Amino acid sequence: MKKLSIIVSKGSLDWAYPGLILASAARNNGVDVSLFFTFWGMDIITKKKVKNLKISPVGNVSMPFPEFMKILPGMTALTTAMMKSKIKKIDIPEVYELIQLIHDMGAKLYACKMAAEMMGLKREDLIDEVDDIIGANEFIYVSKDAEIIFI
Amino acid sequence: MKKLSIIVSKGSLDWAYPGLILASAARNNGVDVSLFFTFWGMDIITKKKVKNLKISPVGNVSMPFPEFMKILPGMTALTTAMMKSKIKKIDIPEVYELIQLIHDMGAKLYACKMAAEMMGLKREDLIDEVDDIIGANEFIYVSKDAEIIFI
Amino acid sequence: MKKLSIIVSKGSLDWAYPGLILASAARNNGVDVSLFFTFWGMDIITKKKVKNLKISPVGNVSMPFPEFMKILPGMTALTTAMMKSKIKKIDIPEVYELIQLIHDMGAKLYACKMAAEMMGLKREDLIDEVDDIIGANEFIYVSKDAEIIFI
Repeated sequence: MKKLSIIVSKGSLDWAYPGLILASAARNNGVDVSLFFTFWGMDIITKKKVKNLKISPVGNVSMPFPEFMKILPGMTALTTAMMKSKIKKIDIPEVYELIQLIHDMGAKLYACKMAAEMMGLKREDLIDEVDDIIGANEFIYVSKDAEIIFI
Repeated sequence: MKKLSIIVSKGSLDWAYPGLILASAARNNGVDVSLFFTFWGMDIITKKKVKNLKISPVGNVSMPFPEFMKILPGMTALTTAMMKSKIKKIDIPEVYELIQLIHDMGAKLYACKMAAEMMGLKREDLIDEVDDIIGANEFIYVSKDAEIIFI
Repeated sequence: MKKLSIIVSKGSLDWAYPGLILASAARNNGVDVSLFFTFWGMDIITKKKVKNLKISPVGNVSMPFPEFMKILPGMTALTTAMMKSKIKKIDIPEVYELIQLIHDMGAKLYACKMAAEMMGLKREDLIDEVDDIIGANEFIYVSKDAEIIFI
């Protein structure tokens, strides 16, 4: 593998990590890495949101509580705090630290133009680590000869 | 990239777009494109459903309402209407129009045989743009030398 | 296609099948297959859970019931029973049988080290078919020249 393109389409805490961890591992192995944030994944590169990503237990059968309890106020906050604590315990950095790390390692970060327009996000709303805002056509071009993963 | 195979496994409005937009961008760049609809993604190629896809806010932390409010009657309809309006505002076609467009551009559309059997769907239940109903073995064969994306 | 690496990140009944069925089809076509279980996907290779995977209708618009009904006690059990019955009717094996089958066919099963640590899972908690517990770096190495799919 020489090139890896990761499309990050979800913005919750649990779906932020897989792309960032794969990106880090791929850079460690000398692979060219591009991350393309789109749809709900825009939250991960939005200044106001990246440090406050959440995880909801609702509809997730891997969290064995009754659904009528999962919707109660405070459950999203509780689940988020529990996951953050577990992540900290095994020495995984927080999401924004991990973004800075992989950016320093040379991974390219792209925001999806269409998603930015849909959500009314401008360049200044996005974190500095974002290299460019590009369309789907440019993404396909950038990903020429790359392995593509959609998260 | 010469060939792209996109597996579309989800049938909500937000997960219908990524595959169709990638397919369109790939065709624009001269890439051979095959879309393989399976599991919940069958809704996108089912005549009775394709024009009435929905999106639920439930469990989606990118939609910042309390979960106990998201389950109230009308919330799915409201969220669907809001997303459709945002999509229209940035001149993205509706799902079925986009399917017709990429089909005209030469993308191949396949339905998953196993999913069709599981859901009791016959050829006449599927939109005309579907080129064939194929099994997983045939999909692997069709996707020989292709980049595969699972949505 | 010579090699296929499938990352399985979800642990519900509906998201267990796509990876296993693709793995089986790929082995049938002589493709080298590695499955890498991570995050919620760890449930699928956990002894206490693999025979009791569930599916929740909550937030899934392809299941057309009002969300306030989907959260009622018993709805996850009911949806799970209905899906199992549909799967049985079309002669698809249960998840654990399918895992044994693809393992016998030569597919390699890997557990994610980070996810195992996060969830406090040890080797003896995982099913015997798991070949090894590996980190993301090793996964990238194993997946050299492989087509990678993220489920």
